[in-house]
Amino acid sequence: MSDFHSIAAETGQPHGEPLKVDSSADVAEACRKADAAFDAYRATGREERAAFLERIAEEILAIGDSLIEAAMTESGLPRARLEGERGRTVGQLRLFADVVRKGRWQQLRIDPAMPDRQPLPRPDLRLRMIPVGPVAIFGASNFPLAFSTAGGDTASALAAGCPVVVKGHPAHPITGGLVAQAIASAVAACGLPEGVFQHLSGPSNDLGAALVDDPRIMAVGFTGSRAGGLALIRIAQARDVPIPVYAEMSSINPVLLLPEALKARGEALGAAFVGSLTMGAGQFCTNPGLVLAVEGEGLDAFIAAAAEAVTQAQPQTMLTVGIRDAYARGVATLAACPGVETVARGAEGDRTRGDAVLFQTTGEAFLADSAMGHEVFGAASIVVRCKDEAELARVVAGLEGQLTATLHMDSADAGMAARLLPILERKAGRILANGWPTGVEVCHAMVHGGPFPATSDPRTTSVGSLAIDRFLRPVSYQNIAQDVLPDELRDSAIGDGAPRLIDGTLKLD
Amino acid sequence: MSDFHSIAAETGQPHGEPLKVDSSADVAEACRKADAAFDAYRATGREERAAFLERIAEEILAIGDSLIEAAMTESGLPRARLEGERGRTVGQLRLFADVVRKGRWQQLRIDPAMPDRQPLPRPDLRLRMIPVGPVAIFGASNFPLAFSTAGGDTASALAAGCPVVVKGHPAHPITGGLVAQAIASAVAACGLPEGVFQHLSGPSNDLGAALVDDPRIMAVGFTGSRAGGLALIRIAQARDVPIPVYAEMSSINPVLLLPEALKARGEALGAAFVGSLTMGAGQFCTNPGLVLAVEGEGLDAFIAAAAEAVTQAQPQTMLTVGIRDAYARGVATLAACPGVETVARGAEGDRTRGDAVLFQTTGEAFLADSAMGHEVFGAASIVVRCKDEAELARVVAGLEGQLTATLHMDSADAGMAARLLPILERKAGRILANGWPTGVEVCHAMVHGGPFPATSDPRTTSVGSLAIDRFLRPVSYQNIAQDVLPDELRDSAIGDGAPRLIDGTLKLD
Repeated sequence: MSDFHSIAAETGQPHGEPLKVDSSADVAEACRKADAAFDAYRATGREERAAFLERIAEEILAIGDSLIEAAMTESGLPRARLEGERGRTVGQLRLFADVVRKGRWQQLRIDPAMPDRQPLPRPDLRLRMIPVGPVAIFGASNFPLAFSTAGGDTASALAAGCPVVVKGHPAHPITGGLVAQAIASAVAACGLPEGVFQHLSGPSNDLGAALVDDPRIMAVGFTGSRAGGLALIRIAQARDVPIPVYAEMSSINPVLLLPEALKARGEALGAAFVGSLTMGAGQFCTNPGLVLAVEGEGLDAFIAAAAEAVTQAQPQTMLTVGIRDAYARGVATLAACPGVETVARGAEGDRTRGDAVLFQTTGEAFLADSAMGHEVFGAASIVVRCKDEAELARVVAGLEGQLTATLHMDSADAGMAARLLPILERKAGRILANGWPTGVEVCHAMVHGGPFPATSDPRTTSVGSLAIDRFLRPVSYQNIAQDVLPDELRDSAIGDGAPRLIDGTLKLD
Repeated sequence: MSDFHSIAAETGQPHGEPLKVDSSADVAEACRKADAAFDAYRATGREERAAFLERIAEEILAIGDSLIEAAMTESGLPRARLEGERGRTVGQLRLFADVVRKGRWQQLRIDPAMPDRQPLPRPDLRLRMIPVGPVAIFGASNFPLAFSTAGGDTASALAAGCPVVVKGHPAHPITGGLVAQAIASAVAACGLPEGVFQHLSGPSNDLGAALVDDPRIMAVGFTGSRAGGLALIRIAQARDVPIPVYAEMSSINPVLLLPEALKARGEALGAAFVGSLTMGAGQFCTNPGLVLAVEGEGLDAFIAAAAEAVTQAQPQTMLTVGIRDAYARGVATLAACPGVETVARGAEGDRTRGDAVLFQTTGEAFLADSAMGHEVFGAASIVVRCKDEAELARVVAGLEGQLTATLHMDSADAGMAARLLPILERKAGRILANGWPTGVEVCHAMVHGGPFPATSDPRTTSVGSLAIDRFLRPVSYQNIAQDVLPDELRDSAIGDGAPRLIDGTLKLD
């Protein structure tokens, strides 16, 4: 039996005890257990399932500081950030507990029989959402807590009633193992089958490939690179029964500086932009990797202030040496693009630490070279100087799909913003004004998703309560006797607090 | 410029005037116009869009009897069936008009700002569903009206706000052309851009392939064969930007005869079953191609009655000579399976007419040969004699995904039905009792969908109001000023009749 080690982000060196590498037999056994647990788990009532999610949150908090310390060592991220991330992780689980309790996710519908309808009677028809089956989740490197073992994908899949098999990210195996133990404790405490949650570990991609290929897995959640996401999608589509892969992959998150805002506060925007760009060493899916504006004094002031801030930026430890290397390659590729000028560079990095970089180019050059639109994961961004609004609109229209699009605007920019909005809606899952894309609120109206390649499925979100819909499918019951119907579809369940669409009219309970 | 002819189903011979074959240039032009029309069409208000759908219904009725006559000639289906289908087509459009007016499909969500929240303020976040973009629809051969040019896919895509490009089915080009003209009249009467609806014609699959490959198409609706659906899915996935294909492909719709029902009325069930089996020459996606029951006197009576009814069945004109040929091949394949016995055969068919066939086999033989589980499109079915409930459950668990599963049961069968229900839910989109799967009600609680290969996406339905969700995606708006927000997300729109989820609580208007 082979083993592997956790790598400390700051040193790039192995640390801690050797860790077990799961085998393909372990994958198959985990999938067997998940499938065997499915019917029992999906039969849990709303209150029971909500209490389970809340128990997971408690168990994670009960790990205490050793969780934060493990995540700090493995990710290189600072304490305050990881404490915040733990709060978000726990908050997500509690949000989904509330969602489960309220029952909207079941989408209950009843079309009563019409025995006297002409020319044919209408049968009694009832609909509910059921979970799709066991789900494979791939944690993200850049959110070792909130987007990993017990992150948003896991929380939403468990909320939907799907057993989860996590392929732990090899960049934080100790952190992932601690969280997996916490979930296992919650499973045991709630008297649920062990197969409701399982965690697989190992450094090789083969493990994840075997997991997605297992016929008992019915959906996949993934956050990571475009190449990684596309590889899993290919496996999922080549199966005898293809399955959906919800992959969040690649986004450069355009920030549009509209003329009046730029005129009023170009300098302040430049400094604030670098704050967003360099946060967490730029390792956010929503990092602002592209700035678009029309030429003018305001833009000059923005660039000057941003350049000053970038120059003063210290290098920061990146998540892994591999990510650091990829960042350096991406920066070199951008720097070599014809028409791209390096405006500023922060203090030099090293093997584990990345330095911030700011580039600029013209709208014309950007339109001529699609390579400038590819994500560079880290604290690099490119400012595109457009000659007028029309060129800026062409640049936006030519972009790939994005997680976010940001507008900095004053009230006098409203007309231009309204003209840009329909273009931006076709490009991004979230459009925000006068802020920075790097904060993702966990709530009901959040969309953390967007057109390809931002994600593989723009019909969904991976953050916020709507994420539960990814793991559900509708089933219709026609003329099924009350004592055979699922509980929540029986007449006696009306009034249980869940909304129902009865003959096309929404009733709150 | 080449042309092609409509083929009369009854004779298998060309009839009528030569029809224009659209070229790949026509495909590109149609997609360009659809894309150009998208923003204007999606900006239509709920009332305006609903009125447009209702106008389409009126224009279809205004065609009058020539539509029914054309469909009779092209499909070989009888007048009463086609008049009923026209009623359903019109009813679907009106149902979606009602859905559009009520506004639930927009899934409006508002999470108000919390400026004083600690440690960080919450921004104002609002969410709505927007249409995905131009949609390609492939009409079905077996429903020349209700599942074709103005069928459920078209109605739901237009309701969502998506321009539609229909690839007309070459089995009914005159019917499709008449309906396309009716929709075009509605587009013009409502002052909408021509690109909102377009219709392409031709006998070759290349036309459809080019349509799905066009980068401006953002989703595909298809009803047809498994091979056809899989071919379109491959094209859609190989695009630079992959898109969803909602393909309804293949289902044998198991009918489970539970012991008490069989004992009480085996003979009556046998006769009624053949009525469902032979309706429309068996050319329904929900045709009962598989009957499962436990051995016993009741089953013997069922088979005897069904055999008698099949023997008396007259051959019926099938939709096309190609479908007739494929049916003959499928019947021959089933007949040659080891362990399969031909129980009864109807009066012999010919080049255009198919004859009904009833087979039987044992549970053991069925479990040993997956070929018996493949769809034979037409009036053929196979009865599987299981030795006990456990074997019956194994047969069900081994089936591919299905559109429907039917239970014939008495109250004393409730225990067995409850044991089977969780298995059936994992196999089918609709579970019905004491009826036949061939009637598909158009309503809110209908699911006409199911696990692969019944469809390519079990998270959806192609019939009923839930079908609109296939063509929508969520967009989130963060801190966007009221005068820039889409109308329905402004504070001033609250009270417009659409439900909203406000800070997690559903408000009806």
